[in-house]
Amino acid sequence: MTGREVRLVSWPDGLPREEDFAIVETDVRTPQDGQVVIRNTWMSLDPAQRIRMRKGASGYLPAFELGATLDGFAVGEVVESRTDVLAPGDYVLHTLGWRDYAVADTASDRPPTRIHVDADTPEQLYLGPLGWTALTSYAGLFDVAELRDGDVVFVSGAAGAVGSLVVQIAKLTGHVVIASAGSAEKVAYVQGELGADETFCYRDGDVAEMLHAAAPDGIDVYFDNVGGDHLQAALDALRPGGRVALCGAISSYNATEPVPGPTNLFNAVAKGLTLRGFLARMYAHRMDDFRRDMQRWLAEGRVSYPETVIEGLDQAPRGFIAMLSGGNVGKTIVRI
Amino acid sequence: MTGREVRLVSWPDGLPREEDFAIVETDVRTPQDGQVVIRNTWMSLDPAQRIRMRKGASGYLPAFELGATLDGFAVGEVVESRTDVLAPGDYVLHTLGWRDYAVADTASDRPPTRIHVDADTPEQLYLGPLGWTALTSYAGLFDVAELRDGDVVFVSGAAGAVGSLVVQIAKLTGHVVIASAGSAEKVAYVQGELGADETFCYRDGDVAEMLHAAAPDGIDVYFDNVGGDHLQAALDALRPGGRVALCGAISSYNATEPVPGPTNLFNAVAKGLTLRGFLARMYAHRMDDFRRDMQRWLAEGRVSYPETVIEGLDQAPRGFIAMLSGGNVGKTIVRI
Repeated sequence: MTGREVRLVSWPDGLPREEDFAIVETDVRTPQDGQVVIRNTWMSLDPAQRIRMRKGASGYLPAFELGATLDGFAVGEVVESRTDVLAPGDYVLHTLGWRDYAVADTASDRPPTRIHVDADTPEQLYLGPLGWTALTSYAGLFDVAELRDGDVVFVSGAAGAVGSLVVQIAKLTGHVVIASAGSAEKVAYVQGELGADETFCYRDGDVAEMLHAAAPDGIDVYFDNVGGDHLQAALDALRPGGRVALCGAISSYNATEPVPGPTNLFNAVAKGLTLRGFLARMYAHRMDDFRRDMQRWLAEGRVSYPETVIEGLDQAPRGFIAMLSGGNVGKTIVRI
Repeated sequence: MTGREVRLVSWPDGLPREEDFAIVETDVRTPQDGQVVIRNTWMSLDPAQRIRMRKGASGYLPAFELGATLDGFAVGEVVESRTDVLAPGDYVLHTLGWRDYAVADTASDRPPTRIHVDADTPEQLYLGPLGWTALTSYAGLFDVAELRDGDVVFVSGAAGAVGSLVVQIAKLTGHVVIASAGSAEKVAYVQGELGADETFCYRDGDVAEMLHAAAPDGIDVYFDNVGGDHLQAALDALRPGGRVALCGAISSYNATEPVPGPTNLFNAVAKGLTLRGFLARMYAHRMDDFRRDMQRWLAEGRVSYPETVIEGLDQAPRGFIAMLSGGNVGKTIVRI
């Protein structure tokens, strides 16, 4: 049996190009004891994967190796099993995306996990509103930023996979939400569909000035998906005791030189601010709480979950580049 | 009755010069109802006062006005009272330093507070080990950095007023302490007298390399008195879940241009780090706990409190400049 895999063949310089990727047809490995073969049906594209496409591993977000197959979240159906814990026909969420068939080890530290799939719950929801990206929004607000009654929330990248849920969760829990996005269409979507109270397009002018106009009395929480001038502006706008959930810094992911941090970090001292970084996996213990709340919100129609669907594994590199260029709304997933 | 006052007459450009200050003899105001006249005996010099010597107030650390008398922590004796809550002969801690006589309002939001003075407890201890600077070290470690058993602690500016206590408190609560200071003499003092486990002089080379050599397995807490390359180095060295108490950024206080923040703030995301800024007054509710612990540690001889004493109010500007230049060990106070 053979399948396609997407490999990284050169370190991208700035925005990745399609030539940095290669799609190869290769034999699917024979599973060993404890392993399963999964036919992937959908995979996730995540901005943070760009961070791993550079030389030198941090130990926490290890770099992809040149010539090796990329990885990332995916869902699929078990087609062969050499373990008792999963059987053919089971659907699983796992980390071996970017390929038609994954051979996954159920004893690894990130094993495939069985997911419940039915007519109302197609498997790709576990890459979307029931998955790690959505947990990022949920845990980022409640656990990392310690959202409190009365907080004014500012979120950047508000049309993206994480940001679009941050807007909605903050709104349905009763908060005033200021949101920024990267195009007039996205801004209209974030305000009209997602319900943000004040919005601006960060390409329209100075972020600090636009944030001040949107929130003249300041903000209490900043959910940072962007970094750069957004973080700088937020540090000025935060009120005493304010909190920043540092989730991503997409503005610097394609940078070829180190990007200086904010020049106004002293605000953290003067106003007693807390900046806390996180990855969704640090809040894995919140997955059950999150899915229970999210399934209720989805059933009540209080949360919508926009998706950009890329058709076909061969289009995944192009979709990934488009996402990094700001071409997507909501979560970007690939139908394999 | 007349007294001397120290006024700021020009915004310092970089390191302050003595010409930026003027000492004037002026009439002491007649106290109104609710006010007391205090004869100041000692005052505190604090690096953070430099932040206020620039145009434009932040609202949180208001700028000194040109031509106006400076202020800051001081202790002294009440010599005239028009209130029932304080009587002549009482000693008080208050915020109207930089002058011989202060007229203080007991109904203000930062009123003078009576302090207990006896043969073992001279009033200047309330600017030192029983005062706000020392509370900074205590609350910074326990409340801001949430010090936990087993944490490896790194502190910069370790020979300074705040740092020297951070080293000692972390040691006496059982922690491994890495410390940096700005001269060979200070480093010897921090290791030999204060008991730090590993030390380096930050002028001797690359801070990141020296920190890595001192703590090859990383650190859990960074108590930041310095900012700049120290914060950058700490963000690389911190282990997952690590915490930074952002206390000061003396490396930038004399800067004439905005100083870029760390280029590696993404470490906070990848490792789930928390950076929390603070001012001592945000932890005023911890003053009683702190004084109880500190008085015990002092009585047991487990904490020493180095001081640099400046003799005379007229020498205060020179002492302030020397402190900012790194000329002091421990707390700098002025005998008025």
